[in-house]
Amino acid sequence: MKWYIAALLTVLTSSQGILTTLSQSNGKYKYDYATVPFFAEVFKLIVSSVFLWRECKKLPPPKMTTDWKTVRLFPIPSVIYLIYNNVQFATLMYVDISTYQIMGNLKIVTTGILFRLFLKKKLSNLQWMAIILLAVGTTTSQVKGCGEASCDSLFSAPIQGYMLGILSACLSALAGVYTEFLMKQNNDSLYWQNVQLYTFGAIFNMARLVVDDFRAGFEKGPWWQRLFNGYSITTWMVVLNLGSTGLLVSWLMKYADNIVKVYSTSMAMLLTMVLAVFLFGFKPTLQLFLGIIICMMSLHMYFAPPSMFVGLPPTVISDPESLVIVSDDHKAES
Amino acid sequence: MKWYIAALLTVLTSSQGILTTLSQSNGKYKYDYATVPFFAEVFKLIVSSVFLWRECKKLPPPKMTTDWKTVRLFPIPSVIYLIYNNVQFATLMYVDISTYQIMGNLKIVTTGILFRLFLKKKLSNLQWMAIILLAVGTTTSQVKGCGEASCDSLFSAPIQGYMLGILSACLSALAGVYTEFLMKQNNDSLYWQNVQLYTFGAIFNMARLVVDDFRAGFEKGPWWQRLFNGYSITTWMVVLNLGSTGLLVSWLMKYADNIVKVYSTSMAMLLTMVLAVFLFGFKPTLQLFLGIIICMMSLHMYFAPPSMFVGLPPTVISDPESLVIVSDDHKAES
Repeated sequence: MKWYIAALLTVLTSSQGILTTLSQSNGKYKYDYATVPFFAEVFKLIVSSVFLWRECKKLPPPKMTTDWKTVRLFPIPSVIYLIYNNVQFATLMYVDISTYQIMGNLKIVTTGILFRLFLKKKLSNLQWMAIILLAVGTTTSQVKGCGEASCDSLFSAPIQGYMLGILSACLSALAGVYTEFLMKQNNDSLYWQNVQLYTFGAIFNMARLVVDDFRAGFEKGPWWQRLFNGYSITTWMVVLNLGSTGLLVSWLMKYADNIVKVYSTSMAMLLTMVLAVFLFGFKPTLQLFLGIIICMMSLHMYFAPPSMFVGLPPTVISDPESLVIVSDDHKAES
Repeated sequence: MKWYIAALLTVLTSSQGILTTLSQSNGKYKYDYATVPFFAEVFKLIVSSVFLWRECKKLPPPKMTTDWKTVRLFPIPSVIYLIYNNVQFATLMYVDISTYQIMGNLKIVTTGILFRLFLKKKLSNLQWMAIILLAVGTTTSQVKGCGEASCDSLFSAPIQGYMLGILSACLSALAGVYTEFLMKQNNDSLYWQNVQLYTFGAIFNMARLVVDDFRAGFEKGPWWQRLFNGYSITTWMVVLNLGSTGLLVSWLMKYADNIVKVYSTSMAMLLTMVLAVFLFGFKPTLQLFLGIIICMMSLHMYFAPPSMFVGLPPTVISDPESLVIVSDDHKAES
């Protein structure tokens, strides 16, 4: 089940990029892009409410913790994302967009670190190497090829840009790890947890629309009057897609973990690049090919049972918690 | 000892590239480059003869097999290199030099395959992955950056070019694996084996100079009259370096193996690129940085004892041929 959800997340995340591109006219958005996450939050809230309502009619009733001590934890992811968005904005004042994109791969490594520190999950050496390789692989696929327009050196931005980039990566990881903590802290119904999460999500996104209005001096009128302006079928598909992606991530946070999510979204990035070759006629690059090989190896290293790597057919003894591998081609030259 | 030799090989191979560049005047060779490998063979032959002569004075005398059945195996590496050089020449008629360079990394994988097939050495899954990663890593470091002169697509050469590139990689691997077989087939003195190898090497290189003379119609006179033309101190350093590199490879073939050699020379390639940044003012690229991380991981995966990867402190039982790993954080989600 976990793997179907992760694969579905990969496909949906990947179509998100494609759909967003298709929803533009002549490279521009005819609609206000800030309304998309707002509608997505509302969509997730409605879906989760319906599921929760159906769960409530069944026996036993879903477990729902409603005391303030628990509920007050649910706006925190929205607050982290708010800070994250502002740091992102500040970072882009120092570095160009492609350096920003390259630095974004750091969040794979920071997620691994925070996952280890805050959730106390132990990772083997091989898994640490796999995580670093995943970041290296996604970065490799993004290396600018010859003849691409901008050619600014990656190593020439001011130091503040890199510091903010690292901060961005930490905040993004923190949001993910914190959400995992939130979903796993008790065995409340997933839908009840979602309802809390998305209520605050919708409120924060609405607040953003209001702030945008104030910033623009209400030139185009208040947000609720132009909410559907420029919306097409494709725009609604972007909303539905973003909403469904969110629901899947929520599921993974409760029943799998952040690392599974990181792999899903990294694979989605590569899949998007491959699809772009076919759909939009992009040139396939050597670096994309290399990046895919590296990420596939990383996936295998992280998730395959360690006994696979060490050598000959392993003998697993009865206690499932302790693994014994007997191998006769131990290569330990050092 | 093995690791000092491998590290020394890395340093010498790396200085080979630097010295060869320094030996040029205005980007051209003032000397006939074909004379360099000839002198290197002669140098190796002299050094090995001196060592063999010293060994002969000691007791017990060195083991030397002199029957024709064994001696006749020693010209074969030279024959393979002769074919290899011609295939290399043919390949370059179909593909450009940078595609050729990229395809050269294939020899890492073909060496692994021939090493497994002909020398019957078993490699663990992790070691196979490490070998593929090494090839991916060296290729990554060579990805052409933005703004570099030629921008021909890597995927646009005629199919013959790729077939010849694969053949090249197989021949290069075959020469290495065959030499390892030759050096390890019996416990003859290394110096006696070297003397045979380099005698044939010197003869084949001399033959090449003669063939070049015939091709050029003796325009510049016979080869022995212009042997030292244009030689500077740096050129002699190139010769000494190439000769010493050959002696180290010979040692590794007898006392280590082809994979150690492949790692040494791959690391040398990366080291050369790093040195070029400092010595020749090349711009450091993101792909070089990524390539170095990938190759370092590959090195660690190949040579570190497997127990390091699987998890908690391993318990190794008395029989050194069989390894038992007891781990309690076995992660086998599938």
